[in-house]
Amino acid sequence: MPVYTAPVQDMQFLLHDVLDIGSTGIPGYDELDRDTTSAILEEAAKLAENVLAPLNPVGDSEGCRLENGVVRTPTGFKAAFDQVRDGGWTALDCDPEYGGQGLPYLVSTAVGEMFSSANMAFNMYQGLTHGAYNAIHAHGSPEQKAMYLPKMVSCKWGGTMNLTEPQCGTDLGLIRTKAVPAEDGSYRITGQKIWISAGEHDMVENIIHLVLARLPDAPAGVKGISLFIVPKFLVNEDGSLGARNQLSCGGLESKMGIHGNATCVMNYDGATGFLIGEPHKGMRAMFTMMNEARLGVGLQGMAQGAVAYQNALGFARERQQGRAVTRTASPDQPADTIMVHPDVRRNLMDQKALTEGARAFVYWGAMLIDRAHRNEDAQALGLISLLTPVIKGFLTDKGFDTCVLAQQTLGGSGFTREWGLEQFVRDARITMIYEGTNGVQSLDLVGRKLAQDGGKHVMGFFDLVKTFIAENKGKDEAFDAQFLEPLKAASKDLQAAGMFFMQSGIKDPNEALSGSYDFMHLFGHVCLGLMWSRMALAATSGLEAGGDKAFLNAKLATGRYYMARQLPATALHLARIQSGAAPVMALDEAAF
Amino acid sequence: MPVYTAPVQDMQFLLHDVLDIGSTGIPGYDELDRDTTSAILEEAAKLAENVLAPLNPVGDSEGCRLENGVVRTPTGFKAAFDQVRDGGWTALDCDPEYGGQGLPYLVSTAVGEMFSSANMAFNMYQGLTHGAYNAIHAHGSPEQKAMYLPKMVSCKWGGTMNLTEPQCGTDLGLIRTKAVPAEDGSYRITGQKIWISAGEHDMVENIIHLVLARLPDAPAGVKGISLFIVPKFLVNEDGSLGARNQLSCGGLESKMGIHGNATCVMNYDGATGFLIGEPHKGMRAMFTMMNEARLGVGLQGMAQGAVAYQNALGFARERQQGRAVTRTASPDQPADTIMVHPDVRRNLMDQKALTEGARAFVYWGAMLIDRAHRNEDAQALGLISLLTPVIKGFLTDKGFDTCVLAQQTLGGSGFTREWGLEQFVRDARITMIYEGTNGVQSLDLVGRKLAQDGGKHVMGFFDLVKTFIAENKGKDEAFDAQFLEPLKAASKDLQAAGMFFMQSGIKDPNEALSGSYDFMHLFGHVCLGLMWSRMALAATSGLEAGGDKAFLNAKLATGRYYMARQLPATALHLARIQSGAAPVMALDEAAF
Repeated sequence: MPVYTAPVQDMQFLLHDVLDIGSTGIPGYDELDRDTTSAILEEAAKLAENVLAPLNPVGDSEGCRLENGVVRTPTGFKAAFDQVRDGGWTALDCDPEYGGQGLPYLVSTAVGEMFSSANMAFNMYQGLTHGAYNAIHAHGSPEQKAMYLPKMVSCKWGGTMNLTEPQCGTDLGLIRTKAVPAEDGSYRITGQKIWISAGEHDMVENIIHLVLARLPDAPAGVKGISLFIVPKFLVNEDGSLGARNQLSCGGLESKMGIHGNATCVMNYDGATGFLIGEPHKGMRAMFTMMNEARLGVGLQGMAQGAVAYQNALGFARERQQGRAVTRTASPDQPADTIMVHPDVRRNLMDQKALTEGARAFVYWGAMLIDRAHRNEDAQALGLISLLTPVIKGFLTDKGFDTCVLAQQTLGGSGFTREWGLEQFVRDARITMIYEGTNGVQSLDLVGRKLAQDGGKHVMGFFDLVKTFIAENKGKDEAFDAQFLEPLKAASKDLQAAGMFFMQSGIKDPNEALSGSYDFMHLFGHVCLGLMWSRMALAATSGLEAGGDKAFLNAKLATGRYYMARQLPATALHLARIQSGAAPVMALDEAAF
Repeated sequence: MPVYTAPVQDMQFLLHDVLDIGSTGIPGYDELDRDTTSAILEEAAKLAENVLAPLNPVGDSEGCRLENGVVRTPTGFKAAFDQVRDGGWTALDCDPEYGGQGLPYLVSTAVGEMFSSANMAFNMYQGLTHGAYNAIHAHGSPEQKAMYLPKMVSCKWGGTMNLTEPQCGTDLGLIRTKAVPAEDGSYRITGQKIWISAGEHDMVENIIHLVLARLPDAPAGVKGISLFIVPKFLVNEDGSLGARNQLSCGGLESKMGIHGNATCVMNYDGATGFLIGEPHKGMRAMFTMMNEARLGVGLQGMAQGAVAYQNALGFARERQQGRAVTRTASPDQPADTIMVHPDVRRNLMDQKALTEGARAFVYWGAMLIDRAHRNEDAQALGLISLLTPVIKGFLTDKGFDTCVLAQQTLGGSGFTREWGLEQFVRDARITMIYEGTNGVQSLDLVGRKLAQDGGKHVMGFFDLVKTFIAENKGKDEAFDAQFLEPLKAASKDLQAAGMFFMQSGIKDPNEALSGSYDFMHLFGHVCLGLMWSRMALAATSGLEAGGDKAFLNAKLATGRYYMARQLPATALHLARIQSGAAPVMALDEAAF
């Protein structure tokens, strides 16, 4: 059975040594000294390691069951959910006005990583609720907030996001679900939604569905979509539960992974709903919290990679097979451990360098969100809007790749269910798809974010990299050669790609869009190159200050690996981009 | 439910236009005119499409069951196996002396592709039998051949390969299974074998296990391993079945994929076995047919990619979502099909270019095997020995990648079981692991094959590429620029990598082994570049001769895509290789 150990030291290193949260001036960060974050993380680690992780294979093998309209979650999920709720873990970064703890998003990101690594399918129940909380918090009326938020903060009630219908996923303009005004100011919602995560389950007293639907007078397309609160049980004015609403779970999807999470077909048969925000502005309301939701999926991808890597490493340290080609490492044993083989190292180093780089990237992203919200910093908001599709797309692709690499470390054992690696692969796979497929992320990046506000944010990113290089070069020859030079080269590749889009994309948008996926990856590598350079600086400072030598030297060595072995991918992505639209668009549809 | 259409036109193009089998002078190839291969392929296609493919999801969802020592295969498998057997499909390339049809291996490769695409788990029952047939055919005594081969050719009896034990997979020197001589000249075999594909099942009357074990006087390590025939039922002299042997299936592995194939724990409790070949020479006997077995796994990887691509394409042609950014393609429809989006095209073109390139590579490999065996051509044998780890490692990695890409084409539907794409991903995953993990393939390539016979074969490969370029350049400017120039550049990268290994690997073997995986991929890309160049030439000739314009132009366009978008990966692999052992080996084991 797989194991999980929360990487608290890595997290503390990021929070305090790399991101240096104490000196950022972000409201709330000043209370987060090392002891405070340590106390939070250690407590979350216990829950993740001892309660959630052991339930992960249980959830996978049992799955959810639909019985007479009620979804039964796997054995142990309900009791674990109680523990998460009782520990206050669902309320970490929620508004204190509604019972939240008001902690920064960065803290809930670190905790979320642990919970996702330990049991991604389980943690989604809370994650979806948090997404719905966010939407109501941002767009609900004061009455709606008062009625729904406190119980969603505590996860006494769950929440969902209902977007997809059979005929529409990416293209929400095709939504058919109808909302008809009733005399009492509410609406009657009718339609079918599919792939609704946590749409129905037995761990909460009520489920607050957020549903996208069309009013009778709605304009066609995405400009005619409104957002509604549709509770499973209607809520009386005193907050008690009223009548069962006219909605039901019509089936559960049979999926490749995340079996522990109920993916529901939801049928709304004239269900009572309440408009959130303005009519026809539902898309805006639903997507306000897009940055957080997508960063959260990037976090899931990274978190699956992280736990897969841990288990691959554990296997490699135990498994004895063959002999080191240079010198026998364990002459008293029948064979050396496979750690001696260079290709096993290569595999593990790829996993480690990708995972730790990804963690830094997503934590940095979470900090930008805090800065954007808590400091009302438009520059930070612009930057995180730009980086969000990269975090979601690149980190879920690499998280999945990491799981596949980790599975490979185990050889045949990686293919068997008992070792658990194959579950991480299957679970991680969804992160590349939901919350906008990674292809859609790349389209968002190239088609929208690059040019946003006149290209200000991407220019800001280039400046940031340039400034970082300028401020740090010339102090340490090895650092310049091993980190700053490769970062500079990768950044130049990214700028060249941007330039190609500007020049050729104006004439033909397909010239840019044919390279969007590669651009997202190119961008991701530059970000991880930046992260590894920052981690290397922090590690060097830490060593000078007498920090944990083994830990900090490992960071430096892993960083060097990333810069030498992963970052050169930018040139390949640039070459693909610069080959333009012709190879991609040459074939007629019929000729495929 | 997924569908499968055998790519007969692609196969015929390869056999007759690219490989030009009629003019090779390989014995048996002269009988294979277009009509003959067409008749064989069309007949196989019917079976694959109508019988095997519909059983693929059945096998996946039902799996195999162990009931009182007997393994029950999924519903429909037994009847389908009868059809395969009755059609003579198990005997295609077997020796006519034992009831085989004596057709070239190339023909059985093409048929094997279809059967693997249609139902990989099912086709493995026959594939394992064929492997055991090969070993007995090459190393068995005349009596053993007469006793076992005819019924294995017809698959009335099955066959297995028993190598792995709990403590040993890659490192077979650790085998503990014992063989003790009995007075009658047979042996008593005792030990446990794991991951034995088709180790026990209900579709055959008898199962002929080939088991690696140690004699009492065996030297330590791989030099002390012997190979034994251990039948499930002992065979009387008249060929009838005798007593049940002392062996049993102790359990079935629960796996990520290939659920329809029984992966067995096999317990040998003093079972009667018969030595094949000489004592202590079992490894040689088992590995004689390694090239074929590994090429067969490369074929499986490619075949999964091929069927996944077909289904992705089918989905993309139907699914309407969004509008083309350049001009609306279907104004009368609520949305355009997703084929209009450049990133969907990029995804499909990657799948198509990889699949068709891989098919050419594996067919070429099969032809080299025929040439080696039928012409006793040592040069062809040397070349295919060199290329075998590339075919196995590169094509299974790329086959899996292709399945993941195809799954992505479907968005959320790709994650649900009903569409079947996720099964292709899960099934393809094993091809990267079994028959030697792809890491082991890369070790075989760099640590053994490169230097084999003084490096003669790799030099021969470089000559082959060089000659191809020299013979074809200067005739067509576009072909030179789009195919020959990129091929030349890629080939130079491969040579530079080989040079790096020679120069640095002598001082420290880890310098070479740290780059082995990248070298395998670099080599694979050069091979596919060569294949696409050859296909482009054949397509151009075909067009001049008035061939199928749409088909041949699509080949050219897909080839251009490969050369422009895939082949540049060689530079990345070279950069990784040239970064040497330092980044890979820097960390102490404890510091991971």
